[in-house]
Amino acid sequence: MTVTAPAGFRAAGVTAGLKPSGRSDLALVVNDGPLAVAAGVFTSNRVVAAPVVWSRTAIGDGAARVVVLNSGGANACTGPEGFADTHRTAEHVAAALRVDSQDVLVCSTGLIGERLPMDKLLAGVDVAVDHLSTDGGGAAAAAIMTTDTVSKTVHIEGPRTPQEGPPDTAGGAPREVGEWSVGGMAKGAGMLAPGLATMLVVLTTDAVVDAERAAAALRAATRRTFDRVDSDGCMSTNDTVLLLASGASGVTPADGTFEAVLEQACARLARALVADAEGASHDIAVTVTNASSEEAAVAVARAITRSNLFKAAIFGNDPNWGRVLSAAGTVPEDVAPFDPLTLDVSINGVQVCRAGGVGEDRSLVDIAGAREVRVDVDLHAGDAEATVWTNDLTHDYVHENSAYST
Amino acid sequence: MTVTAPAGFRAAGVTAGLKPSGRSDLALVVNDGPLAVAAGVFTSNRVVAAPVVWSRTAIGDGAARVVVLNSGGANACTGPEGFADTHRTAEHVAAALRVDSQDVLVCSTGLIGERLPMDKLLAGVDVAVDHLSTDGGGAAAAAIMTTDTVSKTVHIEGPRTPQEGPPDTAGGAPREVGEWSVGGMAKGAGMLAPGLATMLVVLTTDAVVDAERAAAALRAATRRTFDRVDSDGCMSTNDTVLLLASGASGVTPADGTFEAVLEQACARLARALVADAEGASHDIAVTVTNASSEEAAVAVARAITRSNLFKAAIFGNDPNWGRVLSAAGTVPEDVAPFDPLTLDVSINGVQVCRAGGVGEDRSLVDIAGAREVRVDVDLHAGDAEATVWTNDLTHDYVHENSAYST
Repeated sequence: MTVTAPAGFRAAGVTAGLKPSGRSDLALVVNDGPLAVAAGVFTSNRVVAAPVVWSRTAIGDGAARVVVLNSGGANACTGPEGFADTHRTAEHVAAALRVDSQDVLVCSTGLIGERLPMDKLLAGVDVAVDHLSTDGGGAAAAAIMTTDTVSKTVHIEGPRTPQEGPPDTAGGAPREVGEWSVGGMAKGAGMLAPGLATMLVVLTTDAVVDAERAAAALRAATRRTFDRVDSDGCMSTNDTVLLLASGASGVTPADGTFEAVLEQACARLARALVADAEGASHDIAVTVTNASSEEAAVAVARAITRSNLFKAAIFGNDPNWGRVLSAAGTVPEDVAPFDPLTLDVSINGVQVCRAGGVGEDRSLVDIAGAREVRVDVDLHAGDAEATVWTNDLTHDYVHENSAYST
Repeated sequence: MTVTAPAGFRAAGVTAGLKPSGRSDLALVVNDGPLAVAAGVFTSNRVVAAPVVWSRTAIGDGAARVVVLNSGGANACTGPEGFADTHRTAEHVAAALRVDSQDVLVCSTGLIGERLPMDKLLAGVDVAVDHLSTDGGGAAAAAIMTTDTVSKTVHIEGPRTPQEGPPDTAGGAPREVGEWSVGGMAKGAGMLAPGLATMLVVLTTDAVVDAERAAAALRAATRRTFDRVDSDGCMSTNDTVLLLASGASGVTPADGTFEAVLEQACARLARALVADAEGASHDIAVTVTNASSEEAAVAVARAITRSNLFKAAIFGNDPNWGRVLSAAGTVPEDVAPFDPLTLDVSINGVQVCRAGGVGEDRSLVDIAGAREVRVDVDLHAGDAEATVWTNDLTHDYVHENSAYST
């Protein structure tokens, strides 16, 4: 059910002593091949942590053998010394596993602005190397947790559909393709303590894909999944999503199938991130329909998911649709053309706003009854749609994020 | 100390019964001339309340005689019926005061999505007309309060400097000009309950200014004052700032003096809005210096003032400069060019971040000791600067905004 579920991968998760809690804090994921294909998507923040700078360069050739991840420190805003620490980590892992340091990707998560205790970290790498195993995925997923209350993993098998090409019997029956799958792990607890809200994701597959296909598939999948989770509008300095392909299944998935399975895996992990925002009392899906373009739908949905007023209202189980309209109205017309006087808004299926004015009785809306809340906004401006997920704004969010580093 | 301090104005504030609390809720401000110059700046939200639609049109000719304002209902998202209510209000005021309805501006504030009780409102107008007086400014300022804990007013006298032009004695001594001033009132309680966080401002002056000068001065002043208060990033459907000029002083202020006094009046009212965010425990001034342009400085400052993480940290008296950098890094490079590795950040005078990395000891920063917090960010990219004000994100913010309409 995790990064070691596809063939060709080993992983480990150990305690290096980076966290005061004494919980595990260092993970390795190793791709034993035969392929060493890798792709990555990184934060678009201009202030990036040292490991992002390193990994973005190292993955430039579309290849990697190892990912080393630590919790207990983000190694962000740590200057040239922090970059040297990341470099040294990669060199140490490379020596221990006899790979090129350029094939070692590094991820860190934790508080910004503090150096990592390198002695502990490097000693932890040695222990992790000793613990590498083909069922180490669970331990790896646990070691990257920060304020996460549960570890998040995924494993989805690819469809074993008849494959085009020459039949393997003279009779001509289509050959049944072999098994392949996508596994993954993620850390991130939604809005819980995003001072270290780094989202780290490692996906693995034993499908045969080349670097180009891996990169295109990962970018498309993240755009429609992780990019549409917006717990508190704050972009981390460390966000990283990596995909490693071993090719160990020997199967080249048909066009679109690998892409679909990868996106499904990303969607499940993204949903798990939202669900683990324990400071939150509601997960909110804002769906914008009949937009002039997908970009327009995303822009309107994102404006709503970033409205503190709207999110506080949902915490109060208040179907305050005026705040939905007010947030939608902040999107410039050239980004999302629509006529404010035609907007419809439904909350949990009740159309509380019709044509920009009062609709059904708001008292019909039940928000308190379930964690999930659905907000649907019909722009009447086209046929594109998009959904962005967020959480409500709660006392616990304020508490967690005011108390974290003190 | 308010809108009736300059000569040529009468005002009133009465109880029409729009608020369940029974507090005063209807205000009139009348310009008795000789001039009837008016200028206005309105919310840039695409979803606008009926009174904004009305007033924006009515003020198009640069003239107005009366402003009627109500609290207890925003008349936003109320459809054509809501617009008819605003129209009817203007007609009623116009008839009572024997002016053209196109010279009546209307402002409303309160909950979105509910019709106003028009019988009460129009009866209240009649009472207010009977109460108009040249010292009614205080009552008017009180009647537009919603969750405000104090009414906000201002009065600043213009400088009585020697004026250019022919001397009034043969001896040739420069003539001492007469008195003129700018008065004003505002409602808005920062982040307190911005479901009705409408900011309504009425400024008055007895200076002789024409419509063009009034409009230019008001736009410049709001751009550097009200536009730089960003309590919670949420833009209201009703925000309105109006300026009425009576010309009753007979004085035409020298170039720049009227503009300076008007901006000073706006700055004082804007600062008062921040200070009245009673859910907040800190007022935060984010100043960005050495930016490539004023726009760049504003963009970076605004990104920081909109970061929930940063604002929650300040609530926790935590000088979490990593969140300042992380927020600054979200501004696109074409908007604000700077090198993240040169950024300096000081919090209350302590340079906790130097050249994008760790600076002075964060434990030296005292946030708890005062309501005002100063965050200074040096971009090292030019010589422009700007300050944006916000408040911290507190339990009370969540409470007020989750509980308001239920």
